[in-house]
Amino acid sequence: MITTDILIIGAGPTGLFTVFEAGLLKLKCHIIDALPQPGGQLAELYPKKPIYDIPGLPDVLAGDLVNNLMEQIKQFQPGFTLAETAENIDKLDDGTFIVTTNKGTKHHAKAIAIAGGLGTFEPRKPEIPNIAFYKEKGVEYFVKDPEFFRDKKIVIAGGGDSALDWSIFLADVASEVTLIHRRNEFRGALDSVEKLQEYKKLGYVNLITPAEVVALHGEDHLNAITISKDGNQETIETDYFIPLFGLTPKLGAIANWGLEIEKNAIKVNNALDYQTNISGIYAIGDVNTYPGKLKLILCGFHEATLMCQSVYNRLNPGKKYVLKYTTVSGVDGFDGTRKEAEKAVVKSID
Amino acid sequence: MITTDILIIGAGPTGLFTVFEAGLLKLKCHIIDALPQPGGQLAELYPKKPIYDIPGLPDVLAGDLVNNLMEQIKQFQPGFTLAETAENIDKLDDGTFIVTTNKGTKHHAKAIAIAGGLGTFEPRKPEIPNIAFYKEKGVEYFVKDPEFFRDKKIVIAGGGDSALDWSIFLADVASEVTLIHRRNEFRGALDSVEKLQEYKKLGYVNLITPAEVVALHGEDHLNAITISKDGNQETIETDYFIPLFGLTPKLGAIANWGLEIEKNAIKVNNALDYQTNISGIYAIGDVNTYPGKLKLILCGFHEATLMCQSVYNRLNPGKKYVLKYTTVSGVDGFDGTRKEAEKAVVKSID
Repeated sequence: MITTDILIIGAGPTGLFTVFEAGLLKLKCHIIDALPQPGGQLAELYPKKPIYDIPGLPDVLAGDLVNNLMEQIKQFQPGFTLAETAENIDKLDDGTFIVTTNKGTKHHAKAIAIAGGLGTFEPRKPEIPNIAFYKEKGVEYFVKDPEFFRDKKIVIAGGGDSALDWSIFLADVASEVTLIHRRNEFRGALDSVEKLQEYKKLGYVNLITPAEVVALHGEDHLNAITISKDGNQETIETDYFIPLFGLTPKLGAIANWGLEIEKNAIKVNNALDYQTNISGIYAIGDVNTYPGKLKLILCGFHEATLMCQSVYNRLNPGKKYVLKYTTVSGVDGFDGTRKEAEKAVVKSID
Repeated sequence: MITTDILIIGAGPTGLFTVFEAGLLKLKCHIIDALPQPGGQLAELYPKKPIYDIPGLPDVLAGDLVNNLMEQIKQFQPGFTLAETAENIDKLDDGTFIVTTNKGTKHHAKAIAIAGGLGTFEPRKPEIPNIAFYKEKGVEYFVKDPEFFRDKKIVIAGGGDSALDWSIFLADVASEVTLIHRRNEFRGALDSVEKLQEYKKLGYVNLITPAEVVALHGEDHLNAITISKDGNQETIETDYFIPLFGLTPKLGAIANWGLEIEKNAIKVNNALDYQTNISGIYAIGDVNTYPGKLKLILCGFHEATLMCQSVYNRLNPGKKYVLKYTTVSGVDGFDGTRKEAEKAVVKSID
């Protein structure tokens, strides 16, 4: 059982920054995310795209913003349960919660912060008979760890950035990379498309277009796939099939937790602390809704901050401790570090 | 008469960022500030001190944050009325406002955003008879433009960072710099104190401690001051006297505008758009108060954003235009520039 003060569901920018504000109040955080790495859609969907509306960062790549936030929170040593989704919640008699993931990992927390963004990003799955059977037996919807595919034969399907970038990256890792797309045209960054063209010419990547995967084979584990191209079928050997057809956000199991939902978002009390209708469960960032709500990262940062203060007051009734200017108060990390502004010296001049 | 869509009172981080969010909604902004430069207390009080709680900036000097914000908003070409304070407000029949400063500058605006921070920073004034007479006749409480003192004799009084730093800086500009402090000890950054010690030895700065200025002389303009040191008085010639005894924040004339005030802050409707009790006047950042309010820069950013959206809706009833992810929408500057994420290309591979 993982125990923590605040269990954050969602490792996007709002969830990550929550760790910082909680840390200033000496509250420990643990984060669950469905994706294999922190950063939410910034890391998964557009890491190389610029964001212009983060205050004080006129032009920051989404991936760099995630890195900055990870740097900002590392002193507060957050825990992570990655590549798992929060599924069940139990409220105990003492007002604390137990959250269990789809893989059975249990988390015990004093408060819950749902920072789920647009929801859990679920991969779009191709309609191939028996594809469900090969889950974790040769079909993968994410590249969690490229080394997993070292010296394996892999087939990637898709025509967007993910399919292009992983085909190029894994060409150096896998023993054989085949990329299949139902059109001849690819949609992605210009340099990725050009690099794939070069890799194809050099024989680093087998490209089969326009084509579709129509069948999967193998008794215990995938060992071959059948491709349909120009009306003809061909079967090729492979160890893994990785369909990269994009992600669709789903609110998922959280929708069944008894929270008040409006237009696929969780209603919160924005006049106070972004708490939901269930005491102790908060919703912050793009996942919540209230009058005047704007789905912007900078709004999530503010909501996270007020929420942390509310959790502190909830857990420490009667104590007065309010988030203050860090320039004045400094920052004490859970790892023993302290950051503080240089103090003025008092010195006589002779 | 200066005309604008949103008149922002206060050029601190919240006021500056307002220009950006307003700009995304095609609203023009003009900013009034009592200080001679933008940035509020960040620029005036602690430009070289780090801030740790700006999301995505783990460790940023206050002065750099101001520079970043100025860079972020420059495409929206804000106007500035600096070194003046907003004094009178008139609401016209059409719901617009005219704000007049202490120097008589008039501003006509469709909405007002008070982003006044802790208030107007007013210099602490030494108690010297007839000091008021020499206002703009030889007594200056800010160094607005160092060149103003080129080849002049100046006397600075004070023992903190401002007194140290300006004495050092102006030693290269003025013909003669005298620094007077009532103690032998100075309070400031170590390198400033050491540099002053060196400048004193080299004769670049005359240092008189412990001493106080007790009288000012000159018929139309200051031409001398009298100093009291160890019970003896001495009169020295000078063109300017610059007392730098720190700043105290005052809500100032705004307190008389009919706004609902609570604990020296302006009450706003945080459940919607941070509007005050006067329709069309908003208060954002440290100057406002509401249940759960935290005086943090990042909260001001959020409040500014929701406020801008509310102003847009107010000025464009019935139109639907909502602030969105800049990665998707891009940013169109009023100067004709456009920033946008690189679009995906669609290209066939042969």
